[in-house]
Amino acid sequence: MNHINKIEHLGIAVKDIEQANTLYEKLLGVPPYKQEAVESEAVITSFFKVGDSKIELLASTQDDGPIGKFIAKKGEGIHHIAFDVDDIVLELERLEQEGFQILNKTPKKGADNKLVAFIHPKTTNGVLVELCQEVPK
Amino acid sequence: MNHINKIEHLGIAVKDIEQANTLYEKLLGVPPYKQEAVESEAVITSFFKVGDSKIELLASTQDDGPIGKFIAKKGEGIHHIAFDVDDIVLELERLEQEGFQILNKTPKKGADNKLVAFIHPKTTNGVLVELCQEVPK
Repeated sequence: MNHINKIEHLGIAVKDIEQANTLYEKLLGVPPYKQEAVESEAVITSFFKVGDSKIELLASTQDDGPIGKFIAKKGEGIHHIAFDVDDIVLELERLEQEGFQILNKTPKKGADNKLVAFIHPKTTNGVLVELCQEVPK
Repeated sequence: MNHINKIEHLGIAVKDIEQANTLYEKLLGVPPYKQEAVESEAVITSFFKVGDSKIELLASTQDDGPIGKFIAKKGEGIHHIAFDVDDIVLELERLEQEGFQILNKTPKKGADNKLVAFIHPKTTNGVLVELCQEVPK
């Protein structure tokens, strides 16, 4: 069994989703294939396909949401990296036993039809790591 | 022609390459396949395969090198994202015409047998973007 299959996406915190959509379309040479609101996270997201992975732009809909706070503190930029796994529950158990601090012991519903959970950056050299698994249909 | 083929790698700035190698081996479930010094950048790098992409850990060999300065200012964490392109010279010309600020108009030799060039984060929503092309043999 593979523990981590691939980089599923890279999340980038931006202030203005329309400005960033235009810019990343120029950079990547493709338009976003989807725009989706995630109300529980207070974000609007846009997704671009890049090879076998995706770029996810995240703009906050509230100043006190997680992305609003991130931008206030650090400015725009890379927010997290998400890895695709086959079984998120098993993988979270494995990583907790390895000493990683899991922020969501029960995976939650994320954007793009995924179950997601995050690992605290203090246990991953400053990187906010997301695990995600496609929701079984 | 594809402009951007895929995420070639994600670069993560770390203080201690041995500590980070151990940690990322636990996280990703695979050991690094290569460790390489890049003297011009004052770094030691380690590479892990993740699907069709790579994770590159970067530790500074000098406090005043680019990675040493980055960690002093921002702490450990994601440093850059690198996209694979077929023809780096053509792609840099295209992106400059699109208004991106190119930091290396002539690509330079990077780690892992690549020609590389960077785009200034102020023109990419705070993200340091690297383009890279496999060096023709």
